[in-house]
Amino acid sequence: MAVTLHDPPIVTLTTDFGARDTYVGVMKGVILGIAPHAGVVDLVHDLPPQDVQAAAYHVSVASPHFPPGTIHVVVVDPGVGTERRAVAVETSRAVFIAPDNGVLTWILEAETPRRVIELSNPAYRLSEVSSTFHGRDVFAPAAGHVAAGVDLDRLGDAVADPMRLPVSLVTRDDDGSIDGQVQHIDHFGNAITNIPSAMVLEDGGDASAHRVRAAGRDIGPIHTTYADAAEHEPLALFGSAGFLEIAVRNGDAAEQLGLHRGSHVKLYPRAT
Amino acid sequence: MAVTLHDPPIVTLTTDFGARDTYVGVMKGVILGIAPHAGVVDLVHDLPPQDVQAAAYHVSVASPHFPPGTIHVVVVDPGVGTERRAVAVETSRAVFIAPDNGVLTWILEAETPRRVIELSNPAYRLSEVSSTFHGRDVFAPAAGHVAAGVDLDRLGDAVADPMRLPVSLVTRDDDGSIDGQVQHIDHFGNAITNIPSAMVLEDGGDASAHRVRAAGRDIGPIHTTYADAAEHEPLALFGSAGFLEIAVRNGDAAEQLGLHRGSHVKLYPRAT
Amino acid sequence: MAVTLHDPPIVTLTTDFGARDTYVGVMKGVILGIAPHAGVVDLVHDLPPQDVQAAAYHVSVASPHFPPGTIHVVVVDPGVGTERRAVAVETSRAVFIAPDNGVLTWILEAETPRRVIELSNPAYRLSEVSSTFHGRDVFAPAAGHVAAGVDLDRLGDAVADPMRLPVSLVTRDDDGSIDGQVQHIDHFGNAITNIPSAMVLEDGGDASAHRVRAAGRDIGPIHTTYADAAEHEPLALFGSAGFLEIAVRNGDAAEQLGLHRGSHVKLYPRAT
Repeated sequence: MAVTLHDPPIVTLTTDFGARDTYVGVMKGVILGIAPHAGVVDLVHDLPPQDVQAAAYHVSVASPHFPPGTIHVVVVDPGVGTERRAVAVETSRAVFIAPDNGVLTWILEAETPRRVIELSNPAYRLSEVSSTFHGRDVFAPAAGHVAAGVDLDRLGDAVADPMRLPVSLVTRDDDGSIDGQVQHIDHFGNAITNIPSAMVLEDGGDASAHRVRAAGRDIGPIHTTYADAAEHEPLALFGSAGFLEIAVRNGDAAEQLGLHRGSHVKLYPRAT
Repeated sequence: MAVTLHDPPIVTLTTDFGARDTYVGVMKGVILGIAPHAGVVDLVHDLPPQDVQAAAYHVSVASPHFPPGTIHVVVVDPGVGTERRAVAVETSRAVFIAPDNGVLTWILEAETPRRVIELSNPAYRLSEVSSTFHGRDVFAPAAGHVAAGVDLDRLGDAVADPMRLPVSLVTRDDDGSIDGQVQHIDHFGNAITNIPSAMVLEDGGDASAHRVRAAGRDIGPIHTTYADAAEHEPLALFGSAGFLEIAVRNGDAAEQLGLHRGSHVKLYPRAT
Repeated sequence: MAVTLHDPPIVTLTTDFGARDTYVGVMKGVILGIAPHAGVVDLVHDLPPQDVQAAAYHVSVASPHFPPGTIHVVVVDPGVGTERRAVAVETSRAVFIAPDNGVLTWILEAETPRRVIELSNPAYRLSEVSSTFHGRDVFAPAAGHVAAGVDLDRLGDAVADPMRLPVSLVTRDDDGSIDGQVQHIDHFGNAITNIPSAMVLEDGGDASAHRVRAAGRDIGPIHTTYADAAEHEPLALFGSAGFLEIAVRNGDAAEQLGLHRGSHVKLYPRAT
């Protein structure tokens, strides 16, 4: 049973193409040439070049907020032109179109996909496929054809083993403390960890009694809003994607505390 | 009498969310999930974080160029998660949706609004409202519902006293000279003041006979176009938003002259 | 015979307006006010200010990937407010709207245009035309009216001699070697030359036997894909726009090799 596409179709784009070139615009031209009524929405293009892990994070936190039947295209593709596969992944809510390089790791973790199809049918690529720009030649045409109503099965054969990145697990120590890592620094300098609120709250504990430790210092308890800290002071809270986040009120936490992706963050239940 | 929405609905977005995250894209997903035929247009997202004054400037100069019945959403929101109100403001031409933190100051200065409504009705928010991302949870849903035809009165109760920022007034001295300030440095380095062309021209004077002084030096008379100056030389002219502007021909006036927001600019009628 | 517009109309925008201002958004507001069903697509806005040559490159490589009947607007306009003309150029596939300053050089090189029209009819401009922002006052209204079905002939009179930039020719020396130049550094640091693959392949030679020299060093033969080089090593290949390109695998070739626009690149057929 195929997912019902949104009407009119929505196609989102997540790439590392930046803002200095027409690569994103060209993908939109290809999509609109195939699916003239599609609405194309930029998710993010200003990722570090070739950063598959960052793209995997962004598409996993942003895609749930789109209406059911949205088509999400992710092109962060250091292996472009090699034998790496290109795939379409159908979940209960959406279709994801991407290189099979781990960029859909979190989507595949969240839910067993209904279908994973290799984009191997040349009828749904551009007639000439370059070895350097599959965003234009493979992924945009696939998105356009799906948006125009082509069933995924026609794009190619089923794939049994889509690639997943190794996942940094959040661990719980014997003393009940939780050990996680920063997975993204956002535009404001907020350090977003991989510690989900559900894990902290599952033991019925009082989040505001927990204490957070990051960057070699005590960050205090878990607060509710940025305004719970004094101006330019750090605080911990659950951010909008449901993960523990280290912020500085009206400031840049990553810069002020020296946090970066991979920095360890420790959470001690209740007062230590 | 409610303003008639544009058909199809147009929603503009002005935020300080930058280009490194999916926050803007997520707002579009929420809007399109509620109002599938809305066209969403980015005004500007690369504002200094938390800069309410900059957002107020941008929405006031850009919104008049949109067709009647456009919905403008502004999310620069240092008080997110606090008791600050969220509002919808209806003027004779448009609907503005924003935190009640002064970001609509110039809209409220230009015209007595027809309605100011607090976005308090939970039926028109997402079912779970975070304390850190009201762009997604409060403002985008409100814009989507208004775009889908919901009357503003259903969003909440009337607000009598929407917040305004203190306004830097342009003053006229006894000698007839006009004293204003730079309110925005644009991408080209042009320094846009708060001195409106109407104020300079109202006394029937010849603008080209006036002299402008900024950054401790004489900038000369008011010209008509950038090309009136020699290459890399400064000049004053009335810019596209109708304010006196200090520019450098094919150069960056702010950098070359040391101008920034708040810098004083003085205008002497006719030759001194 | 006029080109048939795409349905719904597509308007692309290429400017040097950057991301800090609402200039691009305002152009969209003007276009949608005239042609409510147009889809407006950003090509690129982050060009060096006033860089006509860069805009000419971008619109020439991106426009062929849009569906027939697309309207392309280019506003890189150092002569705004002077006597320079504004034009609409119709080719067999598309309409281009731009200042007549050479920004359409490559479009005019590729094909004799069907019509070149000066945008002189005030009925298709905004009622007040500033001397600093023709993107809003002249080019966006023209694009909107063309998208809404106005024939180009109504916009103004025919122009016989649209301006072209001097073109850097690729030359072939007596020994058969080809001499070209870098014409664009992209977001990844790839140095894209003006040497077309057709020129290299026309003599039936084996591209992989050619050798490339750039930045005072041997770059080796022409490869097929980035992955043909070792990590962080330079290589030459034909890029997605069909030009010889110097890249570094998972690295920044321009930075690593000191390449910039105008750098000479030499190609020796077969082994030297």
